[in-house]
Amino acid sequence: MYSFRNDYSEGAHPKVMEALADTNLEQTVGYGMDPRCQSAAALIRDLCKAPDADIHFLVGGTQANLVVIDAFLQSYEAVIGAHTSHINTHETGAIEATGHKVCSIYAPDGKLTPALVEEVLSQHNGTEHMVLPRMVYVSDSTEIGTIYTKAELAALRRCCDEHGLYLFLDGARLGSALTSPDNDLTLADIAALTDVFYIGGTKNGVLFGEALVLSNAAPKAHFRWHMKQRGAVLAKGRLLGIQFQAILEDGLYFDIARHANEMAFRLRDGIAALGYPFPVPSPTNQQFPVLPNTVIGQLEARGYQFEAQEAVDAEHTCVRFVTSWATPESAIDAFLKDLADCK
Amino acid sequence: MYSFRNDYSEGAHPKVMEALADTNLEQTVGYGMDPRCQSAAALIRDLCKAPDADIHFLVGGTQANLVVIDAFLQSYEAVIGAHTSHINTHETGAIEATGHKVCSIYAPDGKLTPALVEEVLSQHNGTEHMVLPRMVYVSDSTEIGTIYTKAELAALRRCCDEHGLYLFLDGARLGSALTSPDNDLTLADIAALTDVFYIGGTKNGVLFGEALVLSNAAPKAHFRWHMKQRGAVLAKGRLLGIQFQAILEDGLYFDIARHANEMAFRLRDGIAALGYPFPVPSPTNQQFPVLPNTVIGQLEARGYQFEAQEAVDAEHTCVRFVTSWATPESAIDAFLKDLADCK
Amino acid sequence: MYSFRNDYSEGAHPKVMEALADTNLEQTVGYGMDPRCQSAAALIRDLCKAPDADIHFLVGGTQANLVVIDAFLQSYEAVIGAHTSHINTHETGAIEATGHKVCSIYAPDGKLTPALVEEVLSQHNGTEHMVLPRMVYVSDSTEIGTIYTKAELAALRRCCDEHGLYLFLDGARLGSALTSPDNDLTLADIAALTDVFYIGGTKNGVLFGEALVLSNAAPKAHFRWHMKQRGAVLAKGRLLGIQFQAILEDGLYFDIARHANEMAFRLRDGIAALGYPFPVPSPTNQQFPVLPNTVIGQLEARGYQFEAQEAVDAEHTCVRFVTSWATPESAIDAFLKDLADCK
Amino acid sequence: MYSFRNDYSEGAHPKVMEALADTNLEQTVGYGMDPRCQSAAALIRDLCKAPDADIHFLVGGTQANLVVIDAFLQSYEAVIGAHTSHINTHETGAIEATGHKVCSIYAPDGKLTPALVEEVLSQHNGTEHMVLPRMVYVSDSTEIGTIYTKAELAALRRCCDEHGLYLFLDGARLGSALTSPDNDLTLADIAALTDVFYIGGTKNGVLFGEALVLSNAAPKAHFRWHMKQRGAVLAKGRLLGIQFQAILEDGLYFDIARHANEMAFRLRDGIAALGYPFPVPSPTNQQFPVLPNTVIGQLEARGYQFEAQEAVDAEHTCVRFVTSWATPESAIDAFLKDLADCK
Repeated sequence: MYSFRNDYSEGAHPKVMEALADTNLEQTVGYGMDPRCQSAAALIRDLCKAPDADIHFLVGGTQANLVVIDAFLQSYEAVIGAHTSHINTHETGAIEATGHKVCSIYAPDGKLTPALVEEVLSQHNGTEHMVLPRMVYVSDSTEIGTIYTKAELAALRRCCDEHGLYLFLDGARLGSALTSPDNDLTLADIAALTDVFYIGGTKNGVLFGEALVLSNAAPKAHFRWHMKQRGAVLAKGRLLGIQFQAILEDGLYFDIARHANEMAFRLRDGIAALGYPFPVPSPTNQQFPVLPNTVIGQLEARGYQFEAQEAVDAEHTCVRFVTSWATPESAIDAFLKDLADCK
Repeated sequence: MYSFRNDYSEGAHPKVMEALADTNLEQTVGYGMDPRCQSAAALIRDLCKAPDADIHFLVGGTQANLVVIDAFLQSYEAVIGAHTSHINTHETGAIEATGHKVCSIYAPDGKLTPALVEEVLSQHNGTEHMVLPRMVYVSDSTEIGTIYTKAELAALRRCCDEHGLYLFLDGARLGSALTSPDNDLTLADIAALTDVFYIGGTKNGVLFGEALVLSNAAPKAHFRWHMKQRGAVLAKGRLLGIQFQAILEDGLYFDIARHANEMAFRLRDGIAALGYPFPVPSPTNQQFPVLPNTVIGQLEARGYQFEAQEAVDAEHTCVRFVTSWATPESAIDAFLKDLADCK
Repeated sequence: MYSFRNDYSEGAHPKVMEALADTNLEQTVGYGMDPRCQSAAALIRDLCKAPDADIHFLVGGTQANLVVIDAFLQSYEAVIGAHTSHINTHETGAIEATGHKVCSIYAPDGKLTPALVEEVLSQHNGTEHMVLPRMVYVSDSTEIGTIYTKAELAALRRCCDEHGLYLFLDGARLGSALTSPDNDLTLADIAALTDVFYIGGTKNGVLFGEALVLSNAAPKAHFRWHMKQRGAVLAKGRLLGIQFQAILEDGLYFDIARHANEMAFRLRDGIAALGYPFPVPSPTNQQFPVLPNTVIGQLEARGYQFEAQEAVDAEHTCVRFVTSWATPESAIDAFLKDLADCK
Repeated sequence: MYSFRNDYSEGAHPKVMEALADTNLEQTVGYGMDPRCQSAAALIRDLCKAPDADIHFLVGGTQANLVVIDAFLQSYEAVIGAHTSHINTHETGAIEATGHKVCSIYAPDGKLTPALVEEVLSQHNGTEHMVLPRMVYVSDSTEIGTIYTKAELAALRRCCDEHGLYLFLDGARLGSALTSPDNDLTLADIAALTDVFYIGGTKNGVLFGEALVLSNAAPKAHFRWHMKQRGAVLAKGRLLGIQFQAILEDGLYFDIARHANEMAFRLRDGIAALGYPFPVPSPTNQQFPVLPNTVIGQLEARGYQFEAQEAVDAEHTCVRFVTSWATPESAIDAFLKDLADCK
């Protein structure tokens, strides 16, 4: 019985596992200063058309978020995020624990816009009595599956430029976003439009890892000090370089993300065909149908796993299904057949 | 030309100044361990009918707020406040700088209710992926002049007990609240209903100082360590004891707060008689009329000082007038006469 | 040409790699709540004869240190460590970044004693003007290769009990310590004598990971909140459980640590036979001979890698050689042959 | 019976009290933006011959230290201080609570030298694995009464320039230092040689307050944000401006500091004449004789107050006597007479 609970339910793509096995006894220096990391970094610079970018490899998303935000902001500066943003909800106050306020604002589709950013700015008077918002944090795809278009991201960039803000894109699910049928962004676009972003590996085929891309405008000089101080420098850093090399070098990253999306759409279409609604449409690998609680109970009794997103009413719940690089078509079909049997 | 900008525009009540002068050459130990502070603390315990409370004297409100919240909360715990709460808006992220998230929620009249507290709680799932809200922060009077009734505060207390939350009342303007015609709370009520609160001095007649009252449920044992670590132990601590003794011993604190309120009502009634609206009614010493921008300009040209609260439309602004223990009736009358002249 | 730079120069022991490959497509819940972690935790409780211990898996040492210390200490509490301790030197102020002072004291052999602990305590007066030392941090083996005997650790335990201190043992190199010929401690001894310690994996055969053992006296209830807030919860947490299961289940952990020690002793004896001194004797896998700078240059020219520990005089440097589970005997012999050739 | 416990045992010099009384009902804007603060700041710039310096007024020393150090340093940067320095001993980890390591080093006379600074630097390797020392903190007079000469401070300045370090001078007892017979520094010298320092008021004649002088090299732009975030902006900021104006305008600050020194020397000479030793000579208002514990007991029995500095042996203790602007000659003479009576 399949788990649609998350896109990190399995290990890594076989090619990644092979790369780790092949290099296992190679000796390298530690902490990500090794040739494997240098090679992966060069590849990422190429893919991003950002020859001067600094590349750092971190183990996970919360770690990446807290290191980046604390490294970019002064003590009295704050970060703006959607009310649904990961930093505002599911990181146990990790950003505040580094001393910075998260200025959150309600964003119906999980996406920030210049208007929303400016609404937050308008609540601040620029004096020493209030924090200074200094960074905009967005996720692509967002925590509720939506994505940014190139026009939308460019508009945010202009807004940030106008108001002296950094733009940080959390790409934990960037593979799914960039291979969505609705997407018109490239890695190079994102590198050009943001000050810092990361290419999420954990949720797209590697054992763990996020590849951080720092643009020229970023405070690059002492970034590794910030990493180390937060326990975010992996001793065997080469594991990150090896994995990102394996997943990025032949477009595998995008191929498997596309597969995850296709499985999500197959699931979505099958569920919709059974008459269940999707209040927030998602063009990526997270799908949010509303199911009767009785049906949810029957699915769980059969062993399916997925998470509740939020209660809709006493009898219905919006649930979350996530597919991944590892989801087989057969799992979708078996699930849909079982769902059709539920009453 | 009078300034209605704040209730800390002057020094201290003459009786306070006299007490400071009278004790000036007395030698005492430092850091608030002296007989003057002990005596003021005993007086406060009496007034609060809280013989076991711990009393600490701090210099200002932001300092008191950050010390209290950090002392009460564990790293992963958060404080709930109204969107207008001082800790959420005008403390430059002081609470976040100690590592704690402020979970803010929209409260139209600046007051938290059990329903609002529970709405915040419902957004948290109790797992390690989210902060644990653990304290409710309220101000009385609030940042927009409103006050809590005894029933309202008791309801918050029950809500806090039910959910294992501390209740912290910021009494920066407690004098004005407790002497409001709409008030039915006493110092003893507040001491009984909260885990910690303070009697604000800075805004009611002393040079500076907030007297903190810690109930038995509070983490009392090492509170002074938290104070010292935040630079919140005054070397000549006796200055705080002397001032609070002087202001509290004969009911002066309440007399002068009542005067501030009366001046505010005289001002409010006079402004209302000229036809200007007050969208949020305030029974305390802050009043928030809406004036035409042209009138505001004329008042400022005549030398009056007050602060803009927020723009209402292109031609009108909600402004804030604050009265204090030091506001003479004549200043109100002169202002109203000048206002009547404005077009 | 071999690198003696560190014990994390390679990947993982083949059995660990196999275990990761074998379980790769298994679906599990995330964040270390999966059956693989539960199983490894049960195994560790057994090995430690600590049926009530809480086990948590973290990715690396600095991460483990900062999470543990911040979780155990209140804001005003401090940790005592040797001047050479990892937290005092090579963690970029990670402990201070969580708000806690490291009270360091000179310890010639890198080991704390009750006398040294009490010397630190005697520098503190127990008032609110100074931090309260509340934890003793030791490493076994230490940063300079020495180890604690059972009598020494028991004496520290008694000292901690007497003064109300937690005892935290950093076991990044615990495998090497426990298999040293000079060792008389067991995992069960350490579990019984400390409040918290970890079984280091990164430096002894796994790709990454430290297995933390929290005793009953530890603040266990919300430990995972602290982990998450510091970005120390691995999404695919099962990777840690799988690896520790593989390395611990048949005594492999100890077998390979013993091998590392044997290689270190072969190296030590060979170097000593050539007449080079070892000022601080080490019974573990780090060895610190003093070599002429000319010899160091020749070794480096031949491609050998190792780190300088400290300058001895203008012509000699104390260097560090580290062996690991992966070091082949042939590498030692080849090196010694080359060293004999150097002038 | 006199207290020699501290130089903040009394209130303020009568001229300061008069100035507060005279301006008591004046209305001003809050937070130190008022004309009284501006006027005091202008006076300080003149006295310091530093027309471009930024002047800020803070309430106390620990507050000033933590705000300055956190404002100047990035997260991964550390401050160097003598082992006896106030920030290292008597601030309850206030600096670490803002995230920064204090790198302390043994300094027999409480004074840092270029050699000591460079010894700390030599313990750091400049990589991301260690903190970067970035500021030197000195006190004048020091915590044990000694002072810096112009040559010594200039040498530290050169050392700081060479190594890219800020120089911060804590002037909590600057009055006593600058009026010491051994002193050859002026306010202007200190302003020219340091990046930031403060003129201590609390311990020299005002109720409370430290006047901070930020040079051009300091991060001046957002300093007030740091102050506010730490609760270090006084609502009635004018109290600080009024007091510093009163104490500085006619040289009173130096006159009364000189008096404190003279009383200290009269005390020292009298004690020495009775045969008691002073292991560390002090040319300022703190004196540290060694007395037999029996004598100490007799003095205390007579009601004298002073603090123990450290135990010398089982029968002798080094104690601290502090004089102030308020110490009358008669108190010294009476004390010496009583001391002569002790056995």
